[in-house]
Amino acid sequence: MLTKEIITDWFLLLQDTICASLEKEDGKGKFVEDKWTRPEGGGGRTRIIQNGNVIEKGGVLFSAVYGDVPAFLKKDDSTENLPASQFYATGISIVIHPENPFVPIIHMNVRYFEMDNGVFWFGGGIDLTPHYVVEEDARFFHSALKTSCDKHDMNYYAHFKKWADDYFFIPHRNETRGIGGIFFDKLMETKETSREQLFAFVQEIGNTFPPTYTRLMNKNKEKRNTKENKHWQLLRRGRYVEFNLVYDKGTKFGLETNGRTESILMSLPETASWAYNFIPEVNSEEEKTLSFLKKGIDWVQ
Amino acid sequence: MLTKEIITDWFLLLQDTICASLEKEDGKGKFVEDKWTRPEGGGGRTRIIQNGNVIEKGGVLFSAVYGDVPAFLKKDDSTENLPASQFYATGISIVIHPENPFVPIIHMNVRYFEMDNGVFWFGGGIDLTPHYVVEEDARFFHSALKTSCDKHDMNYYAHFKKWADDYFFIPHRNETRGIGGIFFDKLMETKETSREQLFAFVQEIGNTFPPTYTRLMNKNKEKRNTKENKHWQLLRRGRYVEFNLVYDKGTKFGLETNGRTESILMSLPETASWAYNFIPEVNSEEEKTLSFLKKGIDWVQ
Repeated sequence: MLTKEIITDWFLLLQDTICASLEKEDGKGKFVEDKWTRPEGGGGRTRIIQNGNVIEKGGVLFSAVYGDVPAFLKKDDSTENLPASQFYATGISIVIHPENPFVPIIHMNVRYFEMDNGVFWFGGGIDLTPHYVVEEDARFFHSALKTSCDKHDMNYYAHFKKWADDYFFIPHRNETRGIGGIFFDKLMETKETSREQLFAFVQEIGNTFPPTYTRLMNKNKEKRNTKENKHWQLLRRGRYVEFNLVYDKGTKFGLETNGRTESILMSLPETASWAYNFIPEVNSEEEKTLSFLKKGIDWVQ
Repeated sequence: MLTKEIITDWFLLLQDTICASLEKEDGKGKFVEDKWTRPEGGGGRTRIIQNGNVIEKGGVLFSAVYGDVPAFLKKDDSTENLPASQFYATGISIVIHPENPFVPIIHMNVRYFEMDNGVFWFGGGIDLTPHYVVEEDARFFHSALKTSCDKHDMNYYAHFKKWADDYFFIPHRNETRGIGGIFFDKLMETKETSREQLFAFVQEIGNTFPPTYTRLMNKNKEKRNTKENKHWQLLRRGRYVEFNLVYDKGTKFGLETNGRTESILMSLPETASWAYNFIPEVNSEEEKTLSFLKKGIDWVQ
C-alpha cells in the first residue's frame, strides 16, 4: 500500500536527484543544507545554492509537517467525509534564479496532503519565467510537460496548462509571470484513478524537471549579454517579486502561519530592480518578450 | 468655510513646496511629472525623481479622486450617519530612496476623505527607515514630529507614535520597518476639535517634512561608504519591499482597486537584494541597527 512514508521518502530522493543534477550543470555552486523543525510537528531540509557559475541564487526545499488541521481547511472541506483532526503535508519546492539573463527562472512544486479522515490529495506545478522569451525554448518546455502529462491522462496537459496561465498571473501588470507551464491542486482518488496512479503522475512531473531545466541552462548559459540585458533581467525579477509577495498562495500561507521565513522567501532573487514606467523600445527583444506574457498561448501546436 | 477645494489646493501647493526643497537639497535630480486621470473620476499628478546626487529614486504624488462610495466603506461606516453614495479623497504620498546608505529612506502620506453624507476625516503618517540607525538622527526626527504634534494636541505624539510602531511592522521578520514616526487615520471632527483644527494639524505635519528630511539628507549625503554598506542598504530595501507588497494597506488597496500601478509602486527602490539567512557580524553597525528595529523605543525622552 502506498503510505505517506513512501511518498515522503520519494520526495527526499527527488530533492537529492535534483540538487545533484543542478550542481553538475552549474559546475561550481554547491547546495548548503539547513535542517529545521517545526514546533507544532515536522520540519524540513532547506537547500540553498548561491553564486554558482549559472545559478545566482536558488533553493530546493523539502518539508514534511503535521499537526492539527487548520480551521480554514475544515471549513473548506466540501467533501462529505468524517471530520478530520490531524493533517500531514509533504513536498518539494524549487525556485532557481540564474545569473545569465538568457537562462530562464524556473519554479516547481510537488506536494502531498492527507488528513486522518482518509481524505488525501496531490498538488503541484512547474512554470518557466524567461527574462527573454525564446520561442524554441518555450515550445521545448511545454512539449516536455505535455509528454509527461499525456502518459497519465490525455486531458491533464490542457487542463493544467490553463490552470497555470490563470494562477501565474499578475493582475496589476496585466501580465503572466512568464510562459506558464502546468499547475494542479487537490488531485484526488476517483473510480478511474487510484492513489498509485496519481503518485506516478506526480513522480513523472518531478522527474521531468532535471533533464528539462538543465538543458535550458546548458543551451543558454554561455550567451553573451549586455548591461541592458542585465537591467532587463533585474526588472523582470522585480515582477517575480511582485507576484510572489502579492499573489502567491504558498508564500502568503507560509508567512501568515508563522512558517520558516528564510525558507519561504528563498524564492526571491539575489537582486531585483524597479524603474518608473519603463517601456521597452519598439521592436526590441524586450518588447517581444512582453508580447508573450499573456494567457492562452499554445506552445505545443 | 473649509471646503474640499481649499484642502485640495493646499495639497497641490505642498507637492510643489516639497519637490522644490528636495530638488534644491539634491542639487542634480529633477522631478518629472505625469498627469493622469481616473476613468471613474478624478486623477493625479505623479512626480518622480531618479538618479539625483542624493536621491536614487523617489516620488512625490498628488491625487484627488471621487466617485461612488466603495462597498467596503459602506460596511465599515460604524457612525450613525445618513447613507453615503459619493466620496472625494485627496492627498500626497512620498517615498524617497537615497543613494547613500547613510541617508535614511523616508515616507510621508497626508490625506483627506469626505462623503456626501457629511462624514469626513483626515489621515496620514510619516516614518523614517534608516539603513543604519543613528541615534542622534532618530532623536532629531522624533523630536521634530513631537514638536509639531504638541502644537495641536499634547496627546497626539504618544498616540500616533504607537500607531506607527504597530503599523510599520513586518511580522514575518519580527522587525519594525524602520524607527517609525507617526501614523493616524480617521481623524474626525469632535466637539473639541474642528475641521479647521484638524486641517491645521495635517498642514503642520506636511510642513514638517521639508526641513526635517533635507537636514538628514544634508548631514549624511557626503558620508563615505563601502561595498558592505551598499549591500546592507540593498538588503534593508528588500525588507522595505516586503513590507510594502505584503502589508501596506495603501498599496494593497491601490492594486486591488485597479489604481495606477506605476504610481502605487513608485514606493519600491531602484534595486533591492535578498540573501539567504544573512546574519550581521557580532557587534557590527548592522547588528546594532537590527537592535533598534522594534516597537516601543522612546526617542524623545
